[in-house]
Amino acid sequence: MSTGDQQPKRANYDEILRLSLERGFFYPSAEIYHDAPAGFWEYGPTGLLMRNNFVREWRRMLVKRDDMLEIDGSLILPKIVFEASGHLSSLVDPIVQCTKCGTRIRADKYISEKTGLQIDERLSPEDFQKLIAEHNLHCPKCGGSFGMPTKFNMMFRVGVGAEDVDAYLRPETAQSIFVDFQRLSKTMRMKLPKGIAQVGKSFRNEIAPRQALIRLRELMQAEVEIFFNPEAKFDPQKFEKIKSVEMNVLSQPYTDSQKEVAKRFTSTEAVSVFGGKEIIAYYFALLQEFYEACGFRKEDTRFRELSASDRAFYTTSAFDFEVNTSFGWLELVACNYRTDYDLGNHSKYSKNDLSVMDQEKKVLPHVIELSLGVDRSLFALLDFKFFHEQNRDVLRLPSNIAPYLSAIFPLMSKPEFESKAEAIYENLKQEEYNVFYDDSGNIGRRYRRMDEVGTPYCITVDHDTLQNDTVTLRERDSMAQSRIKISEIASTLRDLRDKH
Amino acid sequence: MSTGDQQPKRANYDEILRLSLERGFFYPSAEIYHDAPAGFWEYGPTGLLMRNNFVREWRRMLVKRDDMLEIDGSLILPKIVFEASGHLSSLVDPIVQCTKCGTRIRADKYISEKTGLQIDERLSPEDFQKLIAEHNLHCPKCGGSFGMPTKFNMMFRVGVGAEDVDAYLRPETAQSIFVDFQRLSKTMRMKLPKGIAQVGKSFRNEIAPRQALIRLRELMQAEVEIFFNPEAKFDPQKFEKIKSVEMNVLSQPYTDSQKEVAKRFTSTEAVSVFGGKEIIAYYFALLQEFYEACGFRKEDTRFRELSASDRAFYTTSAFDFEVNTSFGWLELVACNYRTDYDLGNHSKYSKNDLSVMDQEKKVLPHVIELSLGVDRSLFALLDFKFFHEQNRDVLRLPSNIAPYLSAIFPLMSKPEFESKAEAIYENLKQEEYNVFYDDSGNIGRRYRRMDEVGTPYCITVDHDTLQNDTVTLRERDSMAQSRIKISEIASTLRDLRDKH
Repeated sequence: MSTGDQQPKRANYDEILRLSLERGFFYPSAEIYHDAPAGFWEYGPTGLLMRNNFVREWRRMLVKRDDMLEIDGSLILPKIVFEASGHLSSLVDPIVQCTKCGTRIRADKYISEKTGLQIDERLSPEDFQKLIAEHNLHCPKCGGSFGMPTKFNMMFRVGVGAEDVDAYLRPETAQSIFVDFQRLSKTMRMKLPKGIAQVGKSFRNEIAPRQALIRLRELMQAEVEIFFNPEAKFDPQKFEKIKSVEMNVLSQPYTDSQKEVAKRFTSTEAVSVFGGKEIIAYYFALLQEFYEACGFRKEDTRFRELSASDRAFYTTSAFDFEVNTSFGWLELVACNYRTDYDLGNHSKYSKNDLSVMDQEKKVLPHVIELSLGVDRSLFALLDFKFFHEQNRDVLRLPSNIAPYLSAIFPLMSKPEFESKAEAIYENLKQEEYNVFYDDSGNIGRRYRRMDEVGTPYCITVDHDTLQNDTVTLRERDSMAQSRIKISEIASTLRDLRDKH
Repeated sequence: MSTGDQQPKRANYDEILRLSLERGFFYPSAEIYHDAPAGFWEYGPTGLLMRNNFVREWRRMLVKRDDMLEIDGSLILPKIVFEASGHLSSLVDPIVQCTKCGTRIRADKYISEKTGLQIDERLSPEDFQKLIAEHNLHCPKCGGSFGMPTKFNMMFRVGVGAEDVDAYLRPETAQSIFVDFQRLSKTMRMKLPKGIAQVGKSFRNEIAPRQALIRLRELMQAEVEIFFNPEAKFDPQKFEKIKSVEMNVLSQPYTDSQKEVAKRFTSTEAVSVFGGKEIIAYYFALLQEFYEACGFRKEDTRFRELSASDRAFYTTSAFDFEVNTSFGWLELVACNYRTDYDLGNHSKYSKNDLSVMDQEKKVLPHVIELSLGVDRSLFALLDFKFFHEQNRDVLRLPSNIAPYLSAIFPLMSKPEFESKAEAIYENLKQEEYNVFYDDSGNIGRRYRRMDEVGTPYCITVDHDTLQNDTVTLRERDSMAQSRIKISEIASTLRDLRDKH
């Protein structure tokens, strides 16, 4: 079992969870109460800084553009929004309840588990009943018989006002964007194509939440909905800028055994896979570049096309952007071609024509969506970057994502070291990046603590500092040390972050 | 009526609302649906940038400190959290329902409106019934009689999982902080005093939401809970730094007619008003400085002490930080001394002792809270900063809060102007601040549009730019123009923002 302990070893799922719990990344919600429901997690101080950095990069690379707006809508929306969007009838899980003990379980999952068959979750209640009877299935808890299968809506209902009016917590941020489209197109002098972005919480009442941040009942999404005229040609100057960006694409049809064989395409080559739509290749290229900037290697990612039976109800063509984690391929971004499905339905239900003028014609824009799961992206990044080395655990996050860019240490607990170190800390705090101050324990332990939370650069005020106003700059991955002037720390760190 | 039209004139409430709706600050949620419930508003593109800047300043001045952590907790929390916190029994409004038409109204507000009496909302249902009978009050809609008054809980209930387990949307961000306190104190090497901050959505099922962002059902809070040992002396070195900061304090007791007479104190002088607690004066001073940095003048603000009957149920001493808007004094921050009320109750209900070691003794920390309403702070700022001048409307936001720090204009729609302007825009986009690109309409109109959304600096690529690589920098308030080098734009703007 003792093979090459000198080599860094990637941590496994349980070790990432331990790191998260013990180093302030994330932990279960209301955990001091033993019966708190599953599927709710909190971000601790380091996790939140990491998430803020991730969102900042998302804004920098995908949102701060003259063809993009960002909004922030309500989490509670009235029932009619989800009647129009189809979520009320279609965002459902099939469940069955035991007539004896009352236990409720997912019908499709349970039948599949017991029979080994692949079960489509969209079968009718009658079909589920037939399968249960055919295979003589009973309650896993008490052996009782099941009642009639039903559809369980995954939205959380809330009652508004003294009249208890029906409303729902949004299951995706996207609906505010569609419902607000008319005001934004009228007041923001919008020209197609235009993206509208939103980052925030969404809610899904999962029957079986699992795997920490992977399947949550309360999750954070960063979504971009790009509105475009399906008749218009995409701007060749814009396409030119990304035409050589490469991405891995696994296109339909493929069998289960072919699932691992994605092909490497340039954006230009990928256009044909995307139904000839250059605009899809363009935004996929931006997404690919964003994830690379966050530290995901291209060889670990792919765009996987979904089959008709795997797609969400509102989309006619869909790709999942996935990463190959230590616990299997994981979807990070749902990339959906939603056509005019949403704007069309909201036009109908609200009796407002949501079409706009483009190229002197009235057009109901089509929509491409990049729906990014923030929590699982961060969890996946920890999975790729947490390593055991011989004498330390080290989280090799890129500088733009690491919770703290730098830590400041006085070598000894003496006023002359501490006052210099504090002055450096007070100065660096004014920068946009985050810095940490630590004056307790020996210097080696302080380095180890910062290695574990991924701090790329540590700065120590030592004996030489008192002589010549230089400090030791220690780099996390190589552990190499160099000396820099106090006056140059802020700009040196800024440059190091921008290079990642 | 024509008095001094040359003088800038402050806009009124309705004009601020119009600006908000028409210039992308905020607008009602789901407004294309006519019967969408009130009390939900969305942030449009300019409002969101302004809010992000405000939160960034809050972090810079109150949170990025070595005595402070920030977390982000779940919005949905289990029932037991609010049993322990007291919100389930005490966050209630008294309501009565008409026995004939079913209309529900606030009992205290309606009795007060009809009789002119001051009615305490915490009276018992029996007392409300007596008052209704005494004054012979009937349903305002149909004249029917009222049923028995009841207590209406202002939390939104949600049912979790297939079992529909009771949970609630949080009515304040604070509870996650108390519930997480044990994990944070154990894993983050916490020493008292320590603040834990959180910014995010909270929810209150108001019977009568009103005044746009002032009383929302879904609101954004930025809260800080400072945990301290009530026996310990506050660090004199820290206090020294703020001892001369001045604030206006209206302390108890005062009559209605004395309400306008706050006294100006230094932090040092204010300590006696704060029950001798230097720690309260310290954090109030930081809060005062933060609001001044956001553009609120000291003479428009005050800390008003609440009487025992006006305080929230969890506090023994409370001050509202208020501003004097054009529509009256408005509470922006609830500053509560929550003692060990919350940690004590969560210790009891969870059967976990939440006390910590401090100065070699076991102590259950006390808590001071600064609970800041983000939405109403922004609305109040618009109220103070939006002016009509003779030829323009201008929003005089400080540079650190304005949605865009700068706009870039090519003087004419010709490739030589546009390519230079676009290059400047692409470069400035990489900075932390926001910039806007606009190439449509004449230059005067473009300036006016930027004045209305508060952009302090406009940059124009003009004929001289093509000769000597300088641009025109136009200042919003003075409308003064100067020329600067293209190479110096980024750093000039950075400096101007830091000075506000």
